[in-house]
Amino acid sequence: MSRWKITLEYDGGPFIGWQRQETGLSVQQVLEEAAEKLAGEAVLVQGAGRTDAGVHALGQVAHMDIAKPRSAKDIRDGMNFHLKPHPVSVLAAHEVDDAFHARTSAIERQYIFRILNRRSPPALDAGRVWYVPYALDAAAMHTAAQMLVGAHDFTSFRAAECQARSPLKTLDELTVTRRGDEIEIFTRARSFLHHQVRNMVGTLALVGSGKWTAKDVKSALDARDRSAGGPTCPPDGLYLLKVLY
Amino acid sequence: MSRWKITLEYDGGPFIGWQRQETGLSVQQVLEEAAEKLAGEAVLVQGAGRTDAGVHALGQVAHMDIAKPRSAKDIRDGMNFHLKPHPVSVLAAHEVDDAFHARTSAIERQYIFRILNRRSPPALDAGRVWYVPYALDAAAMHTAAQMLVGAHDFTSFRAAECQARSPLKTLDELTVTRRGDEIEIFTRARSFLHHQVRNMVGTLALVGSGKWTAKDVKSALDARDRSAGGPTCPPDGLYLLKVLY
Repeated sequence: MSRWKITLEYDGGPFIGWQRQETGLSVQQVLEEAAEKLAGEAVLVQGAGRTDAGVHALGQVAHMDIAKPRSAKDIRDGMNFHLKPHPVSVLAAHEVDDAFHARTSAIERQYIFRILNRRSPPALDAGRVWYVPYALDAAAMHTAAQMLVGAHDFTSFRAAECQARSPLKTLDELTVTRRGDEIEIFTRARSFLHHQVRNMVGTLALVGSGKWTAKDVKSALDARDRSAGGPTCPPDGLYLLKVLY
Repeated sequence: MSRWKITLEYDGGPFIGWQRQETGLSVQQVLEEAAEKLAGEAVLVQGAGRTDAGVHALGQVAHMDIAKPRSAKDIRDGMNFHLKPHPVSVLAAHEVDDAFHARTSAIERQYIFRILNRRSPPALDAGRVWYVPYALDAAAMHTAAQMLVGAHDFTSFRAAECQARSPLKTLDELTVTRRGDEIEIFTRARSFLHHQVRNMVGTLALVGSGKWTAKDVKSALDARDRSAGGPTCPPDGLYLLKVLY
C-alpha cells in the first residue's frame, strides 16, 4: 500500500464543490472515479480544503492510498487520462509517508480572490472573477483588511453551517492589490472557517465602495455575530492557490 | 449619423469566428444584433481583424454607424446589456470621424499566443491555451522567430484560402518568452495573412521540440510554398491583443 499526495488544478464551475454528495457531481467524486479506474479498486481521495461550488483550485492537495506500487509519473498521467473530460488536472504526484494527511498535516492554506472592477462585464473571465462594475478603492480595502489579520474570534465571518469546533483562527495575511482593472486579494492562514474568505471579501467590498470604514470592519469583527459582518461574495473569483505542509 | 469605434473583448470558443456566415453564430452577428436592439435599426459592424473560430480578443476594434446621437457610456453599456449572454464585452466606445474605418485605418495589429507547456492538461485554461505536453525550448523558438521578422514574402505561412492581394508583409516583432509552464508569443505587424500567426507558431513549435533548426525556418520562408512551412497550430491560444490607429 502506497500513500500518494496529489496536487490539483480545477475549474470549480461545473461542480457542487469539493465534497462528495448525493446532490450532484463533486471534484472528489471525479477524482475517486478516476483513481478507481487506475487502481482497479475503490479509492478514497481526501482533500486539504473543502472548496465550495464554483470555487477553483490552482494548487489543491489531496491524498489517496493505492495498493499496487506505481511511479509518480504513472499516477499523474494515469489520473489525468481517466479524469477526462472533467476540468480537473493532476499537476504532480508524490509518494508520501503513511502519516501524511492532506487535511490534518497542512500547516498553511493560501487563497487568492480576483475581482474584475470595471464597467464592462468579463467575456474571457466569466465565472473566474467576481465582476464588480462600481469603483472600488483597493487601498482603502487593504487598510481595512489589516483589522482582520492576527488571532481573532471570526464568528462574524463564519457561515452558519460551519463545522469547525472553534471560531478562533489566526489570519496570517490579507493583502489587497490593484493591477489595472483587477483587484487581487491574497490571504493565508493555517486554516479558515467555512465561507470565511468570501465573507471577508464581501465585507472589504463594502469598504471599497465607501459604505464602510476600516473602523466598521473592526466593529463587525468585535461583534462576534455573523449578522454584523458583510455579505458573502460570489465564489467565482476564489482560488485555492497552495497548501503548505 | 455618428460613427462609433468600439473596443472588444471576447471568448472565441463558442463562435464560428468574427465574420458573419450562414454556417453558425459569429461575433459580428451577435454585435450587429445587439446594435440593432440598441439603435432600433439594422447596423453593420466592421472589425479590424477577421479572427478565426476559437480565436479570442482582448482588444479587437470595430466601427459602426448609429443614426441617433448617444453618449459613449450609453453605447458601451447599452451594447453590453444587449450582448448578454454571449461572451462578448464592449470595453470602450469612442465617437470617431466618418473617415475612420476599423480595418483600413489600422496601422498595427498585436497578437499574443499562449502555449501551456507541461505534462498535465489545463483545467482552468482549457480552450484558452495550446496545450503542448512535450518540452519546448522557448529560447530556441525565439532565436528562430527572428528569421521571420522584417519584410518578406510569407507564402509559406499563408492559408490557401487567404484573400490578401499580396503575400508580402512586414513583421515588426515576434518574441517568444517562457514564464514558468507557459510560453507566450507576442507579435505585431501592420497586418497579417490568413492563418499567418498560427502557421508561424506551429512552425516555431517544431523548433522548440528540436525537430527543426532556425535555419530550417529560414529555408521554409525562402521556399515561398505553404507545403514548406510548419503545421497550423490550434486557435485556442491566440488572442487579438490590440489594434493601433
